[in-house]
Amino acid sequence: MSNIRTSFTEYIRGLQNEICIALEEIDGKSKFREDQWERDGGGGGTTRVIEKGNVFEKGGVNISTVHGELPQPIKKHFQVSEGWFWAGGISLVIHPENPMVPTVHANFRYFELYDDAGMSRRSDAWFGGGADLTPYYLWNEDAVHFHTVLKQACDPHGSELYPLFKKQCDEYFYNTHRGESRGIGGLFFDYLRKDNGRSLADWNDFTENTGRSFLDAYLPIVKKRMHEPWNPSQSYWQEIRRGRYVEFNLIHDRGTLFGLKTNGRIESIFMSLPPRVRWDYDFLPAPNSREEKLIEVLKNPREWV
Amino acid sequence: MSNIRTSFTEYIRGLQNEICIALEEIDGKSKFREDQWERDGGGGGTTRVIEKGNVFEKGGVNISTVHGELPQPIKKHFQVSEGWFWAGGISLVIHPENPMVPTVHANFRYFELYDDAGMSRRSDAWFGGGADLTPYYLWNEDAVHFHTVLKQACDPHGSELYPLFKKQCDEYFYNTHRGESRGIGGLFFDYLRKDNGRSLADWNDFTENTGRSFLDAYLPIVKKRMHEPWNPSQSYWQEIRRGRYVEFNLIHDRGTLFGLKTNGRIESIFMSLPPRVRWDYDFLPAPNSREEKLIEVLKNPREWV
Repeated sequence: MSNIRTSFTEYIRGLQNEICIALEEIDGKSKFREDQWERDGGGGGTTRVIEKGNVFEKGGVNISTVHGELPQPIKKHFQVSEGWFWAGGISLVIHPENPMVPTVHANFRYFELYDDAGMSRRSDAWFGGGADLTPYYLWNEDAVHFHTVLKQACDPHGSELYPLFKKQCDEYFYNTHRGESRGIGGLFFDYLRKDNGRSLADWNDFTENTGRSFLDAYLPIVKKRMHEPWNPSQSYWQEIRRGRYVEFNLIHDRGTLFGLKTNGRIESIFMSLPPRVRWDYDFLPAPNSREEKLIEVLKNPREWV
Repeated sequence: MSNIRTSFTEYIRGLQNEICIALEEIDGKSKFREDQWERDGGGGGTTRVIEKGNVFEKGGVNISTVHGELPQPIKKHFQVSEGWFWAGGISLVIHPENPMVPTVHANFRYFELYDDAGMSRRSDAWFGGGADLTPYYLWNEDAVHFHTVLKQACDPHGSELYPLFKKQCDEYFYNTHRGESRGIGGLFFDYLRKDNGRSLADWNDFTENTGRSFLDAYLPIVKKRMHEPWNPSQSYWQEIRRGRYVEFNLIHDRGTLFGLKTNGRIESIFMSLPPRVRWDYDFLPAPNSREEKLIEVLKNPREWV
């Protein structure tokens, strides 16, 4: 087994533990339940879900390491007639109950491709991932904090990385059919290969460091906003906006569609979907309201740092 | 303008009126609001939505007649480099508040293709449509009634039609990623062309007659179940099941994805989405409960007539 596969597997296990412990501590009521699952064809994962907590209405922090022959849709995607793969990653989505606390998503993953079933002839390898924030009520200082922490994680690896991956995030988490971003962005990167003077080990460091910065980016915002009062109409707005989250995940998100096409474990994939959601016909926020101001920002992504 | 285009346009207008009047009468509280819209490139539609009623929590009964150059994704779909079209149809989805009353969907449409922008050289023409029922609590007699009325509408046009279109409905409204049907089926037909001894006029009659049978198929069920008592946990189950409805519409439904790809009016397309929806992690109904019995039927589509 390659060193990176071993070390990255240990990394995602450790990060899952660290994040779950921190979230349980803040929540103070609900605990993560754990489901281990195996994949037909090789590998499996550990899904951890927290529900109906004091702070977190629903959240999942999942890891998986899967391997085997490339599923047919992936062969088609990569335009190869045969191939084998190994993929390991951590993926999380947290939906707080209080609409003043933003939803967050993060994912850090490593992928290897081989020419042989024995996984000895590696033909390609890359890292991917990112983290992004989806507020229902926006405090600019929260967006600045989130982006600043992610930028600080990127910068030691090259000052060009944050602006590039921030832009990619705005482009990726975009509901084209609504003409608006899912949230206020963060980082999105993929296919980070040995290339252009970067070693795979460099990208490994980069990916693990951005993953380690997740709690610093998110938790201070949770702690700051979890005691903000809210009313039913703000909760209603949260449900409407969560509908947009569902639309993105089911219509556009490559990870979700990839999971469905390759017969991934449905309940692990759909842990990302919000608990309470609502679709009203042609819902429009009141002029000059906080709700309308959020939409303005989502339609015109900003530079936060 | 061809006779069929004119007459089918009148037909869908009349059916929209008839259905909206009947639903308003049953609801007794909410009225449909109407939005007329125009399409860049030609045509437009009339969206009618009812919300927060006594009986109907959300429902849309939309008609549209659109025409012009084929949008790029449709050219690709039909494998043509140029072409013009006319499409007219009625589409409805009704979400009652009481979980004992099933959700229903129906759609009846006519499509013409041309070789010229002037729409004088028609190269193809066909009808499509259907109706299907999505209960949250199942009374077998309701499923039998719904299918019987639809079969009676089909039979005068050929006894082979109901079994064929019933089967196509079971196949189409299927959440492959869940291994279960969206509901208990009905009819689904498409590309009904002049062919095999059938004239386009025959299919026109068939499509209009099945459309006219919609109220007879659905309203008696509404009237029978709208006074059934229900409790919060049954409403919760309805929200969970509505999540499956959203999954089908956003992941699998060709009509929805077609609308999104061709820049259709989003609010008219998404009127089909249920108002209150919920995703819990790995929600399982109690053994031998009514909820579990529904799932059994959805996993093993039945012959109801």
